Parts: sequence; structure tokens; C-alpha cells
Amino acid sequence: MPDATFAIPFWADLVAVGVGSLQGAMFASGFRDRRLDLLGIAIIGVATGLGGGLLRDIFLVVPLVALSTNWYLVVAVISALVGMLLVQLFNRLDVMITILDALTIGLFGAIGTTKALSLGLPVVPALFIGMVSAVGGSVVRDLLLGTRIGLMHVGSLYAVAAGVGATTLLVLFKLGVPAVAAAIVCVVITTLIRLLAVRYGWSLPEQRAL
Amino acid sequence: MPDATFAIPFWADLVAVGVGSLQGAMFASGFRDRRLDLLGIAIIGVATGLGGGLLRDIFLVVPLVALSTNWYLVVAVISALVGMLLVQLFNRLDVMITILDALTIGLFGAIGTTKALSLGLPVVPALFIGMVSAVGGSVVRDLLLGTRIGLMHVGSLYAVAAGVGATTLLVLFKLGVPAVAAAIVCVVITTLIRLLAVRYGWSLPEQRAL
Amino acid sequence: MPDATFAIPFWADLVAVGVGSLQGAMFASGFRDRRLDLLGIAIIGVATGLGGGLLRDIFLVVPLVALSTNWYLVVAVISALVGMLLVQLFNRLDVMITILDALTIGLFGAIGTTKALSLGLPVVPALFIGMVSAVGGSVVRDLLLGTRIGLMHVGSLYAVAAGVGATTLLVLFKLGVPAVAAAIVCVVITTLIRLLAVRYGWSLPEQRAL
Repeated sequence: MPDATFAIPFWADLVAVGVGSLQGAMFASGFRDRRLDLLGIAIIGVATGLGGGLLRDIFLVVPLVALSTNWYLVVAVISALVGMLLVQLFNRLDVMITILDALTIGLFGAIGTTKALSLGLPVVPALFIGMVSAVGGSVVRDLLLGTRIGLMHVGSLYAVAAGVGATTLLVLFKLGVPAVAAAIVCVVITTLIRLLAVRYGWSLPEQRAL
Repeated sequence: MPDATFAIPFWADLVAVGVGSLQGAMFASGFRDRRLDLLGIAIIGVATGLGGGLLRDIFLVVPLVALSTNWYLVVAVISALVGMLLVQLFNRLDVMITILDALTIGLFGAIGTTKALSLGLPVVPALFIGMVSAVGGSVVRDLLLGTRIGLMHVGSLYAVAAGVGATTLLVLFKLGVPAVAAAIVCVVITTLIRLLAVRYGWSLPEQRAL
Repeated sequence: MPDATFAIPFWADLVAVGVGSLQGAMFASGFRDRRLDLLGIAIIGVATGLGGGLLRDIFLVVPLVALSTNWYLVVAVISALVGMLLVQLFNRLDVMITILDALTIGLFGAIGTTKALSLGLPVVPALFIGMVSAVGGSVVRDLLLGTRIGLMHVGSLYAVAAGVGATTLLVLFKLGVPAVAAAIVCVVITTLIRLLAVRYGWSLPEQRAL
């Protein structure tokens, strides 16, 4: 098997974690009647920004990258507190945040999918790991906040964007495209689908019975 | 220690996963006002059919069997979507589904308990792993749906059936009965207790204080 | 690096687990309208008393100590059932329970932090593991009961006490203080902060935006 490793610069990884944590704190600010305290916000930040990567590594039974250096946790907590303090500013930067978040799920999905491949997982589990990496943080966030899990319900495509991106990566990789190139295509496709879904209100059908 | 390995044919394992996933999707169909989408149903299918095995392997710190081949995830997702589409048909097959599900928790319990034994765990943790394997999927399902966890509340015996079956397996195994024979007794006992509990409304007492 | 190992006598570890499980069952008794059954109480006991240690070992990707002997699960289940039966007695022993619980989070925090250090984790992840060890059980308990996660909301300091204790341990250890001495200081500080917070109603500020 060709080498499936795909790495992004460390600073880019930290920016992606920061975007996730900031998003999580902004989401938590909608629960103002619930009296979340500063620690609650920090926990939501860690869960949202690092949850996908933690679940990825637990499912792969490998050492948790998020615990291998001080930086991930520090960036997650600070980003969450900044997101909390400046939520009104960031709400006005809505478009920028949506773009950064779309990029983030693309990056996390590509990193997760290629990591699973490089550990020898078959394609369907690699796709599963890619999607968990991309959107697992939002599931953990919703569980901890006790709210319904957003991505399981009708709404603009989020996990599906990550899934299509990861599937493309897998197809290209199996066709012999180098992992790095396939990963870049994955990021672009995930980001595009996510942004177009937000723009045009694309969604999956609701559950239905025959 | 004698060999504690107990394996069932691969197709039987897939059928058991499929039954779990189909059950999960049928359960989720009761939340029609919540606008779960197709991805939500697929997630519930994966969680219910594979959740017990995933938790088992995470607790045992071994590679996740459910991610070792493409089949488990594919069967889980397809079963969930079929369960969603044909929920009215399967609701009429209520008795058959209950029997298959009772068999499934018996099989999952026997596989989990013997796997824990073969990895050298003492009997009480092996019993714990057996019960997690059998009913962990239903706990993950309830957590993801944000509903109360059914098996923690008064209702017809479910986890208890798995627990009695696994305990019997452990006693027989310690008495020198080969693992395969002990596992078969476990499946029979679990299935019987579960079906009799449904038929006669057996339940555990509610919590109470002196 | 100097040796970071810190061990407490096995009986003390079991007492700490028992206190946690008893506390969990007492907490669950407040949900009397929900018809939790005996198994539900046992599950809450295991989750509260062992949840922090299970999460710690899953995050560290090492064999789960709680499953290495029969004793932990047995003590957790029995303590939970005793807590359920004698909840009115223990409610009158409120002060004693609060003190024992404060000691327990101090002990779990010190064990977790030093275990993380001895496995080579950097200081911030070691602090994270220490806090998860100390208060993870209460988070799992709240998730399983479907109630809001107490420690994320304004209330008397709980996780913060564990965090300050673990931080002190890390500072002392990096200054060359032996792990055992640093761990004892951690237990004392955590217990003191927790008890003073209960006594004087100390809490973290609620989330707020600029």
C-alpha cells in the first residue's frame, strides 16, 4: 500500500482546533438561561475543538494526539474564553466563521481518513473515522450541553459534506493519487459542499416510512 | 487457564448486528416529531448495532473489531435504513423481532464475556464486559436520542437477562466446561429469560429507601 | 525525569470508589419519579465511582485498572445499593459525606495527575487527566441520568478544587519535590478548597460577553 500519511503544519492544526473551540463557546452562549460558568465554557471548548480528534484516536486505539503536547488544550481553552467574551463581535463575522468552520471539518476529515488508512483500516471504517474526526466534536458538545444532537436532524449539510469529501479522498487514493493530493481535494470538496449547503439550504430528507 | 475463545460464524455476527441496527431505527421512528434525517437514522443504526462491541473493545483496549472489515458498518447502515422504510411491516413482525433481539443480546453477551476471559480478566469484570457488549448499544442509542436510558428504569428484564446468562457462562467455565458449551448455555438462558420477562412482565424492583 | 509514581493503599482506593458510588446513588434518589430500578442504581454507582478512572485509562490508552480485579466493581455496586437503602441516614451524615467526597476528588486527582506524568505526558495534559480522574465520574453520572452536567454550571467549586490541587502538584513536581509529597499537598489543597467553597459558597463567574 502506498503511504497514506497526510500532515498539515502544526500551526494550521492549532488554528483548526481554535476555530472549533471558539464555535463551541459561541454555541454555548445561546444557553444563557442555564448559568454555565467559565469552567463549563472551557469544557465545551475542549469538547468541540478536540472531541473529534479524541474520539478518532480512541477508536483507533493509538495515543491521543491532543494530549501529546500542551498546545492543543491551551489553544482550545483560550479560544473558548475569547469566543465567549467576544461573541457579539464574532456573530457579526458570521460569514468568516462559517467559512473557517467549513475548512476545519474538511481538514479534520482529511487528517482522520488518512490516519485510518495509514493504520491499515479498510475503506468504510476509514470513512467512518474521517467523519468522526470532522464532526465528532459537535456531537460531544451537544451531548454535554444536553441539547439534541444537531447533525442527526434536518438542517444544512454538515456531516454529509465531510462524508463526501472523505469518500472522494478514498476513491482518489485507491486510484493511485498520492495521499497529500487526495487530502487537498477532500478539503476543497468538503468546504465547498458545506458552504453551498448553507447558502442554498441543502439538507437531507427527514426519516420516512414506506 | 483453558482456552476461553468462543467464535460464531461471521454471517451470524453480521445478522446479530443487523438485528440491533434495525431495532434501533424502529425505535427512532417513534421520534417522528423530532425531524431526524437519514444520517441521524444511520447514526442510530451504527450506535445500536455496533455500540456494544465498540464499548467492549474500548474497555478491553484492543483493536475495534467493528472497524476491522467493511462489513459491519455497511450492514449496520443498510439495516437501519431498511428498518426505517419498513417500520410498519416490522412492527407487525413484533414477535419475530423480539425473539431475534433476545438471541442477539445472548450472542453479544457470550462473545463479550468469553473475549474478556480469554484476555485474562477476572470474573466480575468479564461479567461487566459481557453485559456492556449485550446492552451497551441500547445505552448509546438512548444517549444519542436524548431520551432516558430505558434499561436503567423499571421495565421487562433486558440487561438482567444478559447478566444471568453471562454469570452462568462464568460458573460453567470455572467448573471446567469448555467455553463453547458454556457460551451456548449462556445464549439459551439469556434468550429464555428475556422472552419470559416480555411474556410475563417480569421486572426488577424500583429503587427504594429503608 | 524523576519517578512520578504515587500509589495509595489498595483499601484506601476502594474506600474512595465506595464513597463515589454511594454519592451517586444518593444523587439518583432525587429522581424518584423516574422509576429507576435496582440495575439503574447499580449502573449509576459504577459510573460515579469508577467513571473518572475509566475515562483516565481510556484517555491514556492503558489497561483499565477498574477491570483488573473483581473488587472495584463489587465495591461500587454494593456501595450504590447501600446508599440507595440508607439514603435518609446518609443525608443526615451530610457533613461527613461532603468531607469524604472532597478527600476522594483530591485522591483521584493526585492519582490521575501522577499517572499521566509517569507515562510521559506534558503538564497541561497531565492536569487535564487529573481533573478527568477527579470529576469525570460525576459527568458520566449526569449524562446517564439525563440531567444537566452539574459541574459545568454555577455552583460551589468542585472541578476547580481538583484543578488547583493538580496544578500545585505539577508545580511542586517540576520544582523537584518528590511525587508522593507533591501528591499529598494536592490532596490537602483540593480538599480544603472544596470544603471552604461549600462553607462559604465560593463559585466561578457565570459565562458573560463583553
